Amino acid sequence: MNPSNWDIFTGEVVGTALLILLGGGVVAAITFKKSKAYQAGWVAISLGWGFAVMTGAYVAAGVSGAHLNPAVTLGLAIKGDTDWGDVPLYIASETLGAMIGAALVWLAYYGQFRDHLTDPEVVGDRRDGEPKAIEAMEKGAGPVLGIFSTGPEIRNPVQNVMTEIIGTFVLVIAILTQGLNQEGNGLGPLGVLIVALVVASIGLSLGGPTGYAINPARDLGPRIVHALLPLPNKGGSDWSYAWVPIVGPLIGGALAGGLYELAFA
Amino acid sequence: MNPSNWDIFTGEVVGTALLILLGGGVVAAITFKKSKAYQAGWVAISLGWGFAVMTGAYVAAGVSGAHLNPAVTLGLAIKGDTDWGDVPLYIASETLGAMIGAALVWLAYYGQFRDHLTDPEVVGDRRDGEPKAIEAMEKGAGPVLGIFSTGPEIRNPVQNVMTEIIGTFVLVIAILTQGLNQEGNGLGPLGVLIVALVVASIGLSLGGPTGYAINPARDLGPRIVHALLPLPNKGGSDWSYAWVPIVGPLIGGALAGGLYELAFA
Amino acid sequence: MNPSNWDIFTGEVVGTALLILLGGGVVAAITFKKSKAYQAGWVAISLGWGFAVMTGAYVAAGVSGAHLNPAVTLGLAIKGDTDWGDVPLYIASETLGAMIGAALVWLAYYGQFRDHLTDPEVVGDRRDGEPKAIEAMEKGAGPVLGIFSTGPEIRNPVQNVMTEIIGTFVLVIAILTQGLNQEGNGLGPLGVLIVALVVASIGLSLGGPTGYAINPARDLGPRIVHALLPLPNKGGSDWSYAWVPIVGPLIGGALAGGLYELAFA
Amino acid sequence: MNPSNWDIFTGEVVGTALLILLGGGVVAAITFKKSKAYQAGWVAISLGWGFAVMTGAYVAAGVSGAHLNPAVTLGLAIKGDTDWGDVPLYIASETLGAMIGAALVWLAYYGQFRDHLTDPEVVGDRRDGEPKAIEAMEKGAGPVLGIFSTGPEIRNPVQNVMTEIIGTFVLVIAILTQGLNQEGNGLGPLGVLIVALVVASIGLSLGGPTGYAINPARDLGPRIVHALLPLPNKGGSDWSYAWVPIVGPLIGGALAGGLYELAFA
Repeated sequence: MNPSNWDIFTGEVVGTALLILLGGGVVAAITFKKSKAYQAGWVAISLGWGFAVMTGAYVAAGVSGAHLNPAVTLGLAIKGDTDWGDVPLYIASETLGAMIGAALVWLAYYGQFRDHLTDPEVVGDRRDGEPKAIEAMEKGAGPVLGIFSTGPEIRNPVQNVMTEIIGTFVLVIAILTQGLNQEGNGLGPLGVLIVALVVASIGLSLGGPTGYAINPARDLGPRIVHALLPLPNKGGSDWSYAWVPIVGPLIGGALAGGLYELAFA
Repeated sequence: MNPSNWDIFTGEVVGTALLILLGGGVVAAITFKKSKAYQAGWVAISLGWGFAVMTGAYVAAGVSGAHLNPAVTLGLAIKGDTDWGDVPLYIASETLGAMIGAALVWLAYYGQFRDHLTDPEVVGDRRDGEPKAIEAMEKGAGPVLGIFSTGPEIRNPVQNVMTEIIGTFVLVIAILTQGLNQEGNGLGPLGVLIVALVVASIGLSLGGPTGYAINPARDLGPRIVHALLPLPNKGGSDWSYAWVPIVGPLIGGALAGGLYELAFA
Repeated sequence: MNPSNWDIFTGEVVGTALLILLGGGVVAAITFKKSKAYQAGWVAISLGWGFAVMTGAYVAAGVSGAHLNPAVTLGLAIKGDTDWGDVPLYIASETLGAMIGAALVWLAYYGQFRDHLTDPEVVGDRRDGEPKAIEAMEKGAGPVLGIFSTGPEIRNPVQNVMTEIIGTFVLVIAILTQGLNQEGNGLGPLGVLIVALVVASIGLSLGGPTGYAINPARDLGPRIVHALLPLPNKGGSDWSYAWVPIVGPLIGGALAGGLYELAFA
Repeated sequence: MNPSNWDIFTGEVVGTALLILLGGGVVAAITFKKSKAYQAGWVAISLGWGFAVMTGAYVAAGVSGAHLNPAVTLGLAIKGDTDWGDVPLYIASETLGAMIGAALVWLAYYGQFRDHLTDPEVVGDRRDGEPKAIEAMEKGAGPVLGIFSTGPEIRNPVQNVMTEIIGTFVLVIAILTQGLNQEGNGLGPLGVLIVALVVASIGLSLGGPTGYAINPARDLGPRIVHALLPLPNKGGSDWSYAWVPIVGPLIGGALAGGLYELAFA
């Protein structure tokens, strides 16, 4: 399969938008008090992101091959399944799709965002000069930014990058080897399902320290939307951390491509 | 596959009845104190509805194609997979099936309904003139109506319709594109499984604000049954909200059909 | 496929033993304080029984066809997939397998049973003449019997039978129609997986009132083992309820066979 | 398929490393306070280990056949699917892979290990002479060892071995019979998925007493890494228990091989 530019564009934009809509959506669902899924826990988060990948990849698989992730695109280019010349279009489409998905989360939870960000318990009372929650959010640790982008539990760039490398390596090595196991004609529906559960696995097992971006577009696109949206009291977008979930996943994807060539090709 | 009227009727009635029996059932299971699944949480709800779709679709797929949802029927008609002439029979069968399923939930939880609706803690003490719980239920927010139909956390028709549009769009675009990924001969068992997990995904990620009807028959049929059943203290059926989970899903399904034609056809 | 008597015997005994070992095991796992899964909740129970069916059916499918359940055998005989002459051997093998599985649960949790049944908090202090927990267990509601057999939340035989009929109907209609959806050559691995998730669905949605036996052998075999095992303070085996999870599932399986013949054959 | 020595080595090392990275990772994820998955519960553990097996097996299936477990290798050798001459290389590669995986868990959770093991609440205050938590960990029951290796809830070697035999028997009989059900050409992606859910099933149902090693390499490899890692206050490696999760699984795997030959071959 050699998708046209139009197929790459439509498949990656729609697929990544679905991924982020459903992935950001599950974080919103457990964050907001006026959500039926309030505090549903980490199993909900992990399955939610896994099924989000499944949905986006199921829709895009027959169109663009469903990378939905620059680290996957990089790994597939190293393996030789994707033309290097197509890489820029893939990455741009993935980032654009992620931005659209993040904006759709805001639309779907419009009233919840508004109530949450004007709730004195959350944002504090500005009159008494101690808006503690805002302060916390401005450090990038607040729950509203968490609906868009990832942040670490312990802020240590070396470890944070390492954790993102390891998680992304797992994802990309699973995708690269799938051709060995299956009928060999791209990501069929069973491969989509298994890769989705690999993502759930990474979430359950390696998501603890950094929230598992494992995808530069998944983190950067929504962070840009967070910065642009006119939300009151939304806090800062934590740009000082933004390079970690870009650099770590790209290294992880490249290492997976390298190991594949070395050991399995 | 071009199903006969008899196949459409039996497949959609039985399949949608199974969907609502199992879907309404999981809400009953976590709502009633005298249920072994009492308070099992949102992961139970999301998986429960997802597996409910799987069961109904698995049974009906080889008979009627397993739409089980007027919004899906609409999307498939726009795509051209379903004859426009068959649409009324599909929709009528889906709604009838949903009503049968809702009545079966009541049968399966007969004693639980009775105990719950005569529990002073739930319905208040009529003698003291303050039946608070009844009052709450009459506003359509009570747990008994929730076993039948959906209701919003924040009552804002514009946002509620928007959330239902987005959720249904995700469902229908996944169904419409599945022919691209699979062998192309209708909804096989693997497609049934994946669509079921798409529904679980929508529940986890987009179900927070409105309870994700994403299906006009799923909401209207059981609401009619709620209105008809001779349950004491059952409260009102919240008819003022009933249009939202009809209009939103139909728009979402039509948009998915349109995007499919525009981008993927 | 027309399995030999030896295949029916080995497949159904081993398959049903695995089903009950894993099914009873998950109840033990959440019941005992000295278990790492203590109080893991209803999602664990529902997935645990679903995966138990999957494991038993995966092992037995290529041998005996993996009925593992007299109600399934009955439905398949009505449909004509199973010879009526083989029905007694199927049912006997299923019941024997269920007894073996229940005994294996006791072996796997040997120390937990012993500690639990000699814990004063659980069984009371015999010296003060008020062994409340024993009393409760002798009524058949105690947690130790629950590891073997089912019991209702509200003891009302008419409703309890009805709930078991409805749950079993769902299971058997899904199994009977699977030939329509699949390649038509018996229960392949994908069918095994989907039927397992149908069982998880029934557990989540219809398990609340009675604990979803939906299988006469699943309830009777372990109940016999409970009566025979030399456990101190184990309480009664609640024989007065034992007919419900036999009669209900058989009616449900027969109704599913009848509906199949009427609507889908 | 007759894999080369190089294929056995690379497939088993990479596959088992992924298995232990994700399996140990989910225990770390719920153990550490500064993890987003803190206290996510037994459903997370069971699904986490199941998906870990899926990921490792998916990557290794087309390379080495994805045993990832000496008990599986033993069962397959008894069945005749694996050459006895290849058994030593399989077992050595599995153990090496498990050690690499355990070290990667430590890297991914580097800061969490450090914070946890220097937290006075966890390790006690050495000055007051009562480092209770350390004492507990030196007995092998502490949470840090639990990230690497298994330990029993009730320390009774006879029962502990029995529980490991039963759990491993379930796993290996499922793997050995899968050829009967499927197309018969090794562990395809659907078999990978089902075996992964069998592991989740064993975790939910039989993991309560001993933490279900069901794999000698899974327990021994990480235990060696625990002994070697320069972690402060890490406690002992509980070597007195180390034989149980080696002997039990090997007996279980051999029994499954024997039953397969007796009943199903």
